[in-house]
Amino acid sequence: MDPEQFLELANTVTKMKMFPYFEMAHAVISCLYIRDDLGSGAHPFSRKHPFSCWLSSMVNIFASAILANFLLGEPIVGAFRNPNQILLATVVWYLIFYSPFDFVYKVCKFMPCKVILAAMKEVIRCKKVHDGVSHAAKIYPNGFLIMIAIGTVKGNGASFIKILERLMRGVWTPNAMEILTPTFPTKASIAASIIFIVDKKTDWISVPHALVYFGIVIFFVYFKLSSILLGIHDPFVPFENLFCAIFLGGIWDALAHIITNAKKGDENSPKVEIPRREETKKKD
Amino acid sequence: MDPEQFLELANTVTKMKMFPYFEMAHAVISCLYIRDDLGSGAHPFSRKHPFSCWLSSMVNIFASAILANFLLGEPIVGAFRNPNQILLATVVWYLIFYSPFDFVYKVCKFMPCKVILAAMKEVIRCKKVHDGVSHAAKIYPNGFLIMIAIGTVKGNGASFIKILERLMRGVWTPNAMEILTPTFPTKASIAASIIFIVDKKTDWISVPHALVYFGIVIFFVYFKLSSILLGIHDPFVPFENLFCAIFLGGIWDALAHIITNAKKGDENSPKVEIPRREETKKKD
Amino acid sequence: MDPEQFLELANTVTKMKMFPYFEMAHAVISCLYIRDDLGSGAHPFSRKHPFSCWLSSMVNIFASAILANFLLGEPIVGAFRNPNQILLATVVWYLIFYSPFDFVYKVCKFMPCKVILAAMKEVIRCKKVHDGVSHAAKIYPNGFLIMIAIGTVKGNGASFIKILERLMRGVWTPNAMEILTPTFPTKASIAASIIFIVDKKTDWISVPHALVYFGIVIFFVYFKLSSILLGIHDPFVPFENLFCAIFLGGIWDALAHIITNAKKGDENSPKVEIPRREETKKKD
Repeated sequence: MDPEQFLELANTVTKMKMFPYFEMAHAVISCLYIRDDLGSGAHPFSRKHPFSCWLSSMVNIFASAILANFLLGEPIVGAFRNPNQILLATVVWYLIFYSPFDFVYKVCKFMPCKVILAAMKEVIRCKKVHDGVSHAAKIYPNGFLIMIAIGTVKGNGASFIKILERLMRGVWTPNAMEILTPTFPTKASIAASIIFIVDKKTDWISVPHALVYFGIVIFFVYFKLSSILLGIHDPFVPFENLFCAIFLGGIWDALAHIITNAKKGDENSPKVEIPRREETKKKD
Repeated sequence: MDPEQFLELANTVTKMKMFPYFEMAHAVISCLYIRDDLGSGAHPFSRKHPFSCWLSSMVNIFASAILANFLLGEPIVGAFRNPNQILLATVVWYLIFYSPFDFVYKVCKFMPCKVILAAMKEVIRCKKVHDGVSHAAKIYPNGFLIMIAIGTVKGNGASFIKILERLMRGVWTPNAMEILTPTFPTKASIAASIIFIVDKKTDWISVPHALVYFGIVIFFVYFKLSSILLGIHDPFVPFENLFCAIFLGGIWDALAHIITNAKKGDENSPKVEIPRREETKKKD
Repeated sequence: MDPEQFLELANTVTKMKMFPYFEMAHAVISCLYIRDDLGSGAHPFSRKHPFSCWLSSMVNIFASAILANFLLGEPIVGAFRNPNQILLATVVWYLIFYSPFDFVYKVCKFMPCKVILAAMKEVIRCKKVHDGVSHAAKIYPNGFLIMIAIGTVKGNGASFIKILERLMRGVWTPNAMEILTPTFPTKASIAASIIFIVDKKTDWISVPHALVYFGIVIFFVYFKLSSILLGIHDPFVPFENLFCAIFLGGIWDALAHIITNAKKGDENSPKVEIPRREETKKKD
C-alpha cells in the first residue's frame, strides 16, 4: 500500500460514522457483558426484573456519556438525548436477552462474530476517547489531568460505572472498583488520551492527525484481538513493574529490608523481594 | 354535575396552590415514612442522631427536586432554595418526631387523618409529574425518555432516593433499589408522564388539558385510597404479566421447554410454566 | 499590642495567600489521614494499588471543592483545574507514601511539626468556609441553608467524602457517615458559616469583617491545638446536650416516663434518665 493510500484510509477511519453499525456493536458487547455478569442467573433475572435489566443495560451502554456529563457538570440525562440511539440499544438489549431459543445470543457468542464485534467496539472506543479529550480541552484548555480523566471515562466508562450498574441490579460489590485494579482498556484509554493531548497541544508529533488517530485504532484493535485470541491481557504490566520498582518504593523498600536485616545480624534470611504487581484480573 | 361545572372544577384543581397545605401533607407523609422505616429504633435514633434524622427527612421530602436537579445537571442544593418550604418541612419533622407524648404522630397515624393526608399527597404528586415533564420538554423537546424519567423521579423521588437516604442514617440496603422492583407509585408516575407527553406533543387526546390533569389526579387518589383501605396494591400486575408472557420470553421459554422435553422423550413431565411476576412488595 | 496593629494583623491574615505553604500543609494532613486510615495495610496497599492510593488522596485533598461543585451543579472536575495545585498535592502524596526510609512521614508525625501543620490547615479551613459562604450567597442570596451547607462542606469536605473515598480503596463503611455523628470540625464549620452569614447579611456584628475572620481563625486553631495537645475533642457537646434535653424530647420523654410509671403505680423504679449524647468519637 503506498503512503498516500494509507493516509487516505486513515482519513476515512477518522471520519467514519459510528451510527448505526459501530454503535450496534458497542451495544451488543455491553449487553453480552451484562448477561455474562449475571452468570447463570441471567435467565431468571431478565424474566423477573425486566425493567432493572433494561435500565442497567442502558446505563452500561451509555456509561461513557453519563460519566463524562457527570464529571463536567452537564445534564446526566443528556446521554439519552438521541431517540435513535436509545431505540437501537433497546432493540439490541431485547434481542440479546429475549430472542427465541437464545438465537441472537448464541450467534453473538460465536467466536468469529465476537471478534468482529469486539474490533468494532475498539474503533468506537478510540472515537470516544478522542471526542472526550477534545471536549474537555475546549472547556479547560490547561486542565491536562481533566482531559485525561474525561478521555479515560469516555473510553472505558462501563468499567467505572460497574459498581453503580450492579447496584441497579441489587448487587453491591465495593471491591470491584475499577480504580483499585485498572484493567487494560482503562490503561489503554489513559495512554490514548495522553497521545491525543500531546498531538493536540504540542508539536512533538509531526505525523498528520489522521495517522495518529488511525494508529491508536490499530493499537486498540490489535490488543483486543490478542486478548481474545491469544490470552495476552495486559502488555503494560512489565512497564508498571519497572516504574513501581524504581519510583514507588520497590528499590528503597528492598534497601530498607537489607539494612534492617544487616542490623539484626540475621545473615540467614537476606531474602530481598521487590514487590511485583500481579497482572490485573480481567473479570472479578 | 353538569359538564361546565366539572370543567371549572378541573381548572381549579390544575391551578391549585401547593403551598402550604399540600406541601404540609407531603412532608407529613414523608416523615411518617421515615419514622416507620426506622421501626422500633425511631425513638432512640431521633434522640441520639437528631441531625442525621433531620437531614434524611429533608432529603426524603425534597427527593423529587434533588433527583430531577441531579439528572438535569442543575444545582442539587437548588431544591432547598425556598426558606419557607424548608421551615414548613422542619416544623413538620419536629412535630412528628418530638411532639410531647407523641401526640402529633398518633393523630397523623389515625386512619381518617392518614387517608386525607395521603390523598393530598397524591394531588401534589400529580403536579410534580406534570411540572417535571414540562420542564424536561423545555430542555429536550424530543427526549421522550428523558421526559418520562424526569416525570417519574419527580412523582416518586422518595423511592428512588431511598437507599441514599437510608445511607444517611447509616443503613445500607443495596437490595432496596426501586428499579429492581418498581412499586405502584413509580409505575403510576410513568403512566402519568406518558399521558402528559401524549397530551402535550400530539393531538391524540382531544379533551382539554385541565381534564386530563384532573383525570390523573383522580386516578392517583383512587388507587392510593384502594391501597390504604382495600389493600389493592398494584393494578398494573395483570398487564405486566401479559406483556412479559408475550414479549419478554414467557411464550418462547414455554415453547423451548416443550421442545426440550419432547426431544428427551420425557412424556411424564410436560409441566409448562409461564413465569409469573409476583406482586411487588409494598415495604421491604 | 495596640488595637491598630491588631487590626492590621487581622487584615494580613484575611488576605494571606494559601498557595503554596498552607495548601501544602492541607495536603500533608490529608495524606497523613489517608495513611493512618489504611492502618497497618498502608505499606502493602500503597505498593500494590498506587493508582487507587493516589486518586483517593487527590479526592481527599480536593474534597471540599469536589463536594461544593457537586452540590452547586458546577463541573466536579473543576476542582482539578489548577495544574500547580495538583502537582503540589501529588508531590506531597509521593513523599508521604514513598519517601526513602519513610523519612518524610516520620518527620510529619513528629509532634511539633504536626502541630504547626494542623494549625496551618485550620487557617486554610477558615478561608474555605468563608469562600464557600460568599460563593453560595452570590448564587442564592436568600438561601441561608444553602450557604451553611456549602460553607460546611467546604470547611470539612474530607469527612463528608470519606465513605466515597474509602470506596475508591475498595472499602465500604456505610456506618462512617459524617452526618450520623458530626465531628467537631463539622460543627465548627457550621458555626463559622453562620457567623459569616450574620456578618455578611445583617448589621448585628459591628466589628470590622477582618476581625470576625481573624476571630474564627483563632477559634479554629485554638480548638485544634486543644484537641491535639489536651485531648479536648468537642466543646459543643454540653450545649448540644442542653438543647436536646429542652427541645429534642429530653424533658418530655422524662415526663412521659414519670407519668407511665405513676400510672403503673410502680413506685420502686422512678429512675428518670435524660438521654445524653455521648461525645462523638474522633476516629471510627
